[in-house]
Amino acid sequence: MEVTRANFKDSLSTVYSAIEEADFLAIDGEFSGISDGPNVSALTNGLDTPEERYMKLKKHSMDFLLFQFGLCAFKYDSTLSKYIIKAFNFYIFPKPFNRTSPDIKFICQSSSIDFLASQGFDFNKVFRHGIPYLNHEEEAQLREQTEERRNQQANGVGSNNFISPPKSVTCVPEEHKDFINMVVEKVEALFTNTEKTVELEPCTGFQRKLIYQTLNWKFPKGIHVETIETEKKERFIQICKVDDEERKRREQQKLEREQEELNDAVGFSRVIHAMAKSGKLVVGHNMLLDVMHTIHQFYCLLPEDLQDFKEVTKYVFPRILDTKLMASTQPFKDLITNTSLAELEKQLKGKPFKSPAVDAAEGFPSYDTAHDQLHEAGYDAYITGLCFISMANYLGTFLTPPKAHLSVRSKLIEPFINKLFLMRIIDIPYLNLTGPDLQPKRDHVLYVTFPKEWKTSDLFQLFSAFGNIQVSWLDDTSAFVSLSQTEQVQIAMNTSRYAESYRIQTYAEYMQGKQRDKDKTGQASSHSHWGEDSWLKPHYRPLGKRSISPVPAEQGAGETSITDGWTHYAQEDSTGRKKIKTDEMRAQTYAGVVDSKTSEGWLKTQPTSDSPAVSPEQDTDGESPEHTEPTNADEGMETWQQPPSKKGKNGRKNKKRMRASGRIEMVGKGATDFRKI
Amino acid sequence: MEVTRANFKDSLSTVYSAIEEADFLAIDGEFSGISDGPNVSALTNGLDTPEERYMKLKKHSMDFLLFQFGLCAFKYDSTLSKYIIKAFNFYIFPKPFNRTSPDIKFICQSSSIDFLASQGFDFNKVFRHGIPYLNHEEEAQLREQTEERRNQQANGVGSNNFISPPKSVTCVPEEHKDFINMVVEKVEALFTNTEKTVELEPCTGFQRKLIYQTLNWKFPKGIHVETIETEKKERFIQICKVDDEERKRREQQKLEREQEELNDAVGFSRVIHAMAKSGKLVVGHNMLLDVMHTIHQFYCLLPEDLQDFKEVTKYVFPRILDTKLMASTQPFKDLITNTSLAELEKQLKGKPFKSPAVDAAEGFPSYDTAHDQLHEAGYDAYITGLCFISMANYLGTFLTPPKAHLSVRSKLIEPFINKLFLMRIIDIPYLNLTGPDLQPKRDHVLYVTFPKEWKTSDLFQLFSAFGNIQVSWLDDTSAFVSLSQTEQVQIAMNTSRYAESYRIQTYAEYMQGKQRDKDKTGQASSHSHWGEDSWLKPHYRPLGKRSISPVPAEQGAGETSITDGWTHYAQEDSTGRKKIKTDEMRAQTYAGVVDSKTSEGWLKTQPTSDSPAVSPEQDTDGESPEHTEPTNADEGMETWQQPPSKKGKNGRKNKKRMRASGRIEMVGKGATDFRKI
Repeated sequence: MEVTRANFKDSLSTVYSAIEEADFLAIDGEFSGISDGPNVSALTNGLDTPEERYMKLKKHSMDFLLFQFGLCAFKYDSTLSKYIIKAFNFYIFPKPFNRTSPDIKFICQSSSIDFLASQGFDFNKVFRHGIPYLNHEEEAQLREQTEERRNQQANGVGSNNFISPPKSVTCVPEEHKDFINMVVEKVEALFTNTEKTVELEPCTGFQRKLIYQTLNWKFPKGIHVETIETEKKERFIQICKVDDEERKRREQQKLEREQEELNDAVGFSRVIHAMAKSGKLVVGHNMLLDVMHTIHQFYCLLPEDLQDFKEVTKYVFPRILDTKLMASTQPFKDLITNTSLAELEKQLKGKPFKSPAVDAAEGFPSYDTAHDQLHEAGYDAYITGLCFISMANYLGTFLTPPKAHLSVRSKLIEPFINKLFLMRIIDIPYLNLTGPDLQPKRDHVLYVTFPKEWKTSDLFQLFSAFGNIQVSWLDDTSAFVSLSQTEQVQIAMNTSRYAESYRIQTYAEYMQGKQRDKDKTGQASSHSHWGEDSWLKPHYRPLGKRSISPVPAEQGAGETSITDGWTHYAQEDSTGRKKIKTDEMRAQTYAGVVDSKTSEGWLKTQPTSDSPAVSPEQDTDGESPEHTEPTNADEGMETWQQPPSKKGKNGRKNKKRMRASGRIEMVGKGATDFRKI
Repeated sequence: MEVTRANFKDSLSTVYSAIEEADFLAIDGEFSGISDGPNVSALTNGLDTPEERYMKLKKHSMDFLLFQFGLCAFKYDSTLSKYIIKAFNFYIFPKPFNRTSPDIKFICQSSSIDFLASQGFDFNKVFRHGIPYLNHEEEAQLREQTEERRNQQANGVGSNNFISPPKSVTCVPEEHKDFINMVVEKVEALFTNTEKTVELEPCTGFQRKLIYQTLNWKFPKGIHVETIETEKKERFIQICKVDDEERKRREQQKLEREQEELNDAVGFSRVIHAMAKSGKLVVGHNMLLDVMHTIHQFYCLLPEDLQDFKEVTKYVFPRILDTKLMASTQPFKDLITNTSLAELEKQLKGKPFKSPAVDAAEGFPSYDTAHDQLHEAGYDAYITGLCFISMANYLGTFLTPPKAHLSVRSKLIEPFINKLFLMRIIDIPYLNLTGPDLQPKRDHVLYVTFPKEWKTSDLFQLFSAFGNIQVSWLDDTSAFVSLSQTEQVQIAMNTSRYAESYRIQTYAEYMQGKQRDKDKTGQASSHSHWGEDSWLKPHYRPLGKRSISPVPAEQGAGETSITDGWTHYAQEDSTGRKKIKTDEMRAQTYAGVVDSKTSEGWLKTQPTSDSPAVSPEQDTDGESPEHTEPTNADEGMETWQQPPSKKGKNGRKNKKRMRASGRIEMVGKGATDFRKI
């Protein structure tokens, strides 16, 4: 169902009841851009901390507009054994409510706009008919303004608010005295003749102020004064002779009208309030940006601190699940080769999964997944919901007896709740909304600074003695270099002691320096988790028995596979600066670790040793084909690829490596829709 | 004629010939916003220097997108005694050309977008079908890239460019050796069998690089290698057996194709290049922002310095005329009460003006001014051209014998050439592109700083002893206060000596301080016109006899009329900050001055003493009705208005004052289209 400003008010009760009835809600947003700063690759460094990632997205993504919001409500009908769905596609635009309301400026990114345009996105619907919105603070301000104006305009008796402060009373300037006297005469005449109403000529705001003020003082009773706006937007004053009852009735009418205008201004935010209040499970795909934008536009400006963000997220989205994280986690990660939304949806149609049975509710158009309308937010929300159901039902097959339909309240889903997928962080698969984030030990990582002329090849040369390395560029003159063996770190540090052109620090030293800078500039957050030496402590280690990973051998394999299937790029863009992506890194090393950290209760109900391990896998197949090609797909670019030095220990691994080395993934500027991955 | 990406290439020759044939061109742009910083009122302080205004517009307006460009070519047909017009309405969008081309980010301002939406603006046409563009630097970079790629890909003999630098040659990694050997075998087979062509499977950019490199080395002659892109955007390599002639032919084809792609990327900028090259008179209405955006998007990033901006403007627009400046200048200023484009067009239909006779050229749709399509750039350009013709022809009536049609090369038009209207600067009506700007003496102006709680009323109270003052807000804690008499300045300074809550400087002191700060921070421009004491020198004075103003008495009147018709506002916006506009100030004081400074030759051909004076008048009637209403048009706002202390010396003056004091003009956030004024 398409919802614009034109039908929003009429649709609202339908939306509310859809939310109330639903078993769960799926959401998706479309934005006017992704990054106004670094390119997407730089925005998503593989060794970001969750704090860093949050800060980057907050800084570089929030000035874009979420201008389409998809909401799909799923309600399970147990008699029909199918889900009944109600999909809404809201067009959003911050149309200024009046002249004092905020005049929002938002950024558009050409590549994103071009991408949406190529998908048939209707910009006219957004800009002409988008639903307005206010965040809580703006709403409060508007309510206050309305209240103040009401007090100032109050007619007749009881308007003592108006008398103070006295300094807001304006003397009638000499040249307006005739005009005001004329108005007073007209009102006096009203009391002596049979007319009930007198309408004044359109006049200026200042003159209207004088009129209100004078009449309020001269005729504290018996009249009602109101400003009317003509179709031509001219404003004039209407004065009516009224008894006390009539006056009160009119006041009441005005109050209600104002209340309605206010609600109109709050607009789409009311839908978000209803979602939050419902406490329903909200499902999204790779939804960190959706969550951030939703809170930012409709709830409150994003807090500085990640911990505060988690708090506010828990309020707006009390129960949330990210299907990309779910698909990247065992038991799904072994079954799903590509977790981009479109591919995931396709794969979940085939064995061992089952397409869920769904029907559109009466009066709601049904989407046809065969002719997809990908990147329409309503459709994407719908697809996301389908993916969730397929995966959830698959978990149900592990129960004894197996269940074909798994309730959204099932314990089996709990491990995935309130964790948001983190794109392309090598060793931290998700943001944990209800607890501390994973703190992987990065003691094989070096922080290297060098002249701005250096390219990835220079770093490879520098570290050529160490076999495979992985480079994660930070900026033109610095990068993280991950070595394959922690023992090499000390050798590298010793070697670099006399170097002049470059400088090496351990990751721990680097983080300490950063923390010191932060403390110095007084920006240290009280919530900071990065203590002086916290990086040196063995924060987590596979805990053996606590891990429920069913194939212990694979954990070992995982630990060596850190050198497996890497692909590295460097390329000059048109400004001569490096555009780099280091992707393909698989989180195998930490897979078991993640299990052990996050598996308190994960799938504990699993009765058999065939139970699937729940450990997220990083996105290795994320890019849709048009995004995986090298930026400059002609042959002039510089490309590096290190042959993997170790083979995986089993067929699956091997296959993965082959696949990884058989293709080159790159995120250039064109990868505008990286969220959809 | 609507021009989008779809028909741009086919229309280009039509556009070129329209430009070449034209007597003059009229232009107009539509933008995605006006100000990303202060509100429009703060952006246009009444006492800005031209440098300050330029810097403000550069800083706060250039991140918006010019997304519709109107060009109307006017050609006078002397046999028909009418203009034949060709109007083009170009949709512009920086669609990324390829993955290395710049991914432009631009800002949208909700109020501007909403305003355009209400006028039926077609955003889908812009974003889906907009014509791309490159500025000169981007174009040069792209040409360089193409050149480099060409060298690297060069096939067979003569490709010695490829051999150096050797470090760009990549060793074939172990795991690709089988693949590359297979390719080599295929090519070898090509030489022994009857096939002419072999097509490889789609592969990665890295693999394609290896293939190019290997084949180039193994088969320096006899084959042509090319990357083909499928409809699905997959790239594969095609290898053809060719003789030398065929190879050259193919190389040539490829070269031409690349050249064409390059031209496509330069896109709309080619129209601007053609305009610049033609040297034709370009007419616009209130066109400073149009000129700045045009240069910024299609030519080069705007220079830091105003003087450099003037230089580049002279290159891109060698001959330019602003109809708003023309309409605000004698002899028109006495005849035209409202110089907003729509109003101007209406007024120029009536006496003493004459609607020009125009016909659309064959194949071009004609606009109907009765059913206007205002704010469509092509239409606005058309209307602007009509206004120019009407005013020019009116000047022709002063000739002996009078001329009904004035050529665009007439001397009578010279005084208006290469001067751009400056919105709402009290005493500098225009930016002079071909010489130094006017430097009015501002010795009646004080710079006042005060606590941020102060409002306009506090300033009026502070200066209540001095009669009328005019307040031009700078920010929350400072404003210019113009006194009506220069002699009061010293009194004010003396009085303020012991004040604690506020501080007063003369304008000269303020400017000196600013200059010192500028010098200190090393940002002093070598072109700076604001010398240490330049403000104290009587830079210009009416030069009596040199002035051709026909009513000398009026000059005197003008000098006192500085206190005439002022209107002052202050109002709290939703964020509690002051929104102020001081408008309505008429430039009468300087009118004569401007005459004398700018009238070298102005209308010198005028034979009679009835000759019209050429002196610009500031915009007193600029706002269209929907923009003149106070921001918060209800009665709660604070408004001040000082009664004028002196009456004008003649009826006209008096009438103007009355009108001015009878209305309140204000530019709030809603005044999104202030350029159209």
